[in-house]
Amino acid sequence: MAEAKVTDPVEILRNLIRCPSVTPEEGGALAYLDALLSNAGFTTHRVRLTGPDTPDVENLYARFGSKGPNLCFAGHTDVVPPGDAAQWRFPPFEGAIQDGLIYGRGAVDMKGGVSAFIAAGLDVAAAHGHDGDSESLPGSISFLITGDEEGPAINGTEKMLRWLADRDERIDHCVLGEPTSRAALGDMVKIGRRGSLSATLTVHGKQGHVGYPHLAENPIPGMVRLLAGLDGAPLDSGSAHFQASNLEVVSVDVGNTAFNIIPAEAVARFNIRFNELWNPVTLKAEIERRLASAAGNRVHFSLAFEPRSSDSFLTAPGGFVDLVVESIAATLGRRPELSTTGGTSDARFIKDYCPVVEFGLVGTTMHAVDESTPIDEVGALKRVYADIVARYFAAFGR
Amino acid sequence: MAEAKVTDPVEILRNLIRCPSVTPEEGGALAYLDALLSNAGFTTHRVRLTGPDTPDVENLYARFGSKGPNLCFAGHTDVVPPGDAAQWRFPPFEGAIQDGLIYGRGAVDMKGGVSAFIAAGLDVAAAHGHDGDSESLPGSISFLITGDEEGPAINGTEKMLRWLADRDERIDHCVLGEPTSRAALGDMVKIGRRGSLSATLTVHGKQGHVGYPHLAENPIPGMVRLLAGLDGAPLDSGSAHFQASNLEVVSVDVGNTAFNIIPAEAVARFNIRFNELWNPVTLKAEIERRLASAAGNRVHFSLAFEPRSSDSFLTAPGGFVDLVVESIAATLGRRPELSTTGGTSDARFIKDYCPVVEFGLVGTTMHAVDESTPIDEVGALKRVYADIVARYFAAFGR
Repeated sequence: MAEAKVTDPVEILRNLIRCPSVTPEEGGALAYLDALLSNAGFTTHRVRLTGPDTPDVENLYARFGSKGPNLCFAGHTDVVPPGDAAQWRFPPFEGAIQDGLIYGRGAVDMKGGVSAFIAAGLDVAAAHGHDGDSESLPGSISFLITGDEEGPAINGTEKMLRWLADRDERIDHCVLGEPTSRAALGDMVKIGRRGSLSATLTVHGKQGHVGYPHLAENPIPGMVRLLAGLDGAPLDSGSAHFQASNLEVVSVDVGNTAFNIIPAEAVARFNIRFNELWNPVTLKAEIERRLASAAGNRVHFSLAFEPRSSDSFLTAPGGFVDLVVESIAATLGRRPELSTTGGTSDARFIKDYCPVVEFGLVGTTMHAVDESTPIDEVGALKRVYADIVARYFAAFGR
Repeated sequence: MAEAKVTDPVEILRNLIRCPSVTPEEGGALAYLDALLSNAGFTTHRVRLTGPDTPDVENLYARFGSKGPNLCFAGHTDVVPPGDAAQWRFPPFEGAIQDGLIYGRGAVDMKGGVSAFIAAGLDVAAAHGHDGDSESLPGSISFLITGDEEGPAINGTEKMLRWLADRDERIDHCVLGEPTSRAALGDMVKIGRRGSLSATLTVHGKQGHVGYPHLAENPIPGMVRLLAGLDGAPLDSGSAHFQASNLEVVSVDVGNTAFNIIPAEAVARFNIRFNELWNPVTLKAEIERRLASAAGNRVHFSLAFEPRSSDSFLTAPGGFVDLVVESIAATLGRRPELSTTGGTSDARFIKDYCPVVEFGLVGTTMHAVDESTPIDEVGALKRVYADIVARYFAAFGR
């Protein structure tokens, strides 16, 4: 085995930040990774996915080795817009480094995580050579990188996983490199996520003049009654690995600008983040039960659930979860909390195919002005990922 | 006394309908009336009133006779817009007559009423001659016609009354010719109106992500609690001459288009129509009490009352009210209900100066496409007004 060169993840990160890959723009980010990985002996696939009413999106899948098991690192190179660039200390697509921090949109979410696992993967490829020697690896290492995580997430990971499955490309375990650390690198991994269900509630009334309320039917008191009933009691009190399920009414709108008109309709929109005590079917039934009970025969309403709900999931502690935890503890000297908190991520799609654990940088500055991460932590994250690869093939390799 | 000619109110109405006097446009309507009345011996004043942030508006005051008591007929020649003229059976500013009905915007609200009392007044003037003989009338008859009733009502009746008071021009009793009849001409007069108070309620929260509700503070549950408390119990159960006071929440708005964002603020707007058991001061105190009680220490809110509230008022039955009722009964064979229902009118301004009773046409088609009134009823209304004049001077004249 040749002396392996050590790849610098900060250099990769700097190059990625310089690609203005605001969703759905590829911005050169995937082309750059494709070139790096191809040169290192990875088999790569650039996949442009399309769908009605959504922009086309570029995605990348790259694999080193052909045997199983296949350990996949997943992530995205698309970023949210920088907002007003003049507010930034350094240009958001420059990758300036100062006082040990690298600045730029995506530094944390999640070009940092991508750079760390790509660097770890390039080291693996270098160690195993790329002139026909990739089979010396006791399995495969792969990368699934989307350009549609911050956008509609329709032409991204979900469709890529189906694309892979259609080609009989199997992923056995997955690490998603989202910024899961809370205050210090390694203090938290995510082993599941709550599900998400959204709906729009409309209360129907009859327009009229406030001077003649008996000729009209104001939908707002009915809406107040329904919302009080909807949100009146907790859905549950949480479970071993999950917070309590939570309903938030995110908007109520009537749009009546006159003080003397009783409006015809009121619309509310709500979202529920729910744990494994529910699934979309049982939860929809509970919502309908609560609304019907609050409405009685008095409130005429309609309810429309958003088509894209996601179920909750949990990658059970033990096995792969423990392996990731041990890598973090051994590399960083810190045992992460096993969490299922926060928003959704592409793990909601991956969990249908294989066990998935999320681990990455400290997320504090994500989506903010002056998004930045310590360059030392990018290096440390790469070492964790490299340790995961080593333990993985030691445990599962053939 | 010369043989008096009989003035046709339908001809006046047709001419008025042909003036496109959509608020704030004078449209020729007041110039036409001014000419008619001047020629008949009335002293007329065209008064252009102005104010900040509102269009200038033309108004007309005309008086026949110089002695008291001064019986004033009040009304407006401005009309609401016709909407899509193509939807009308006849052009809205033509005054077409078919099958005994006259069609046009304002036919009912309230060029019909204006035409009827102007015609009655012209007959009075003709009967008393206008060459120095107007003093044979045992008092005065006057008209107060505004062009700003359907609009902001700022440069109209309210300021005209102050303008008159500043000139020591006294009005002793007033008939407002709004369309008060409900199903048949003469079935209802209005002897008062409820007051009106409007306010905007804002609940302040803290924006955040639905995945991290503990870091945010959703204003919507607080708004639901406040609105339930605000509208939870009746304000009263009505009084001898008034319906129960009524609160209507006319809008609730957040304007959040995302399902994953907890909004920072929710805004509700409400209007109260209240009877003489309240006044704006006691009512504001009750609203504040209810909101504070519903909010507890948990809901951070602010409340802003609209600057222009109107108090309720009642012209007590007896005296002038009975006189109007007797004229209706004698002329039409129908005893009107004494009502205080419906929206506001310029009577809310007039009642500060003298007793006011509202009586006019059947209001069914007001503000609607194909607004129209039977021409017979315009004639009948003129006869009622003429009878009121006769009874008035018999009772109060010097």
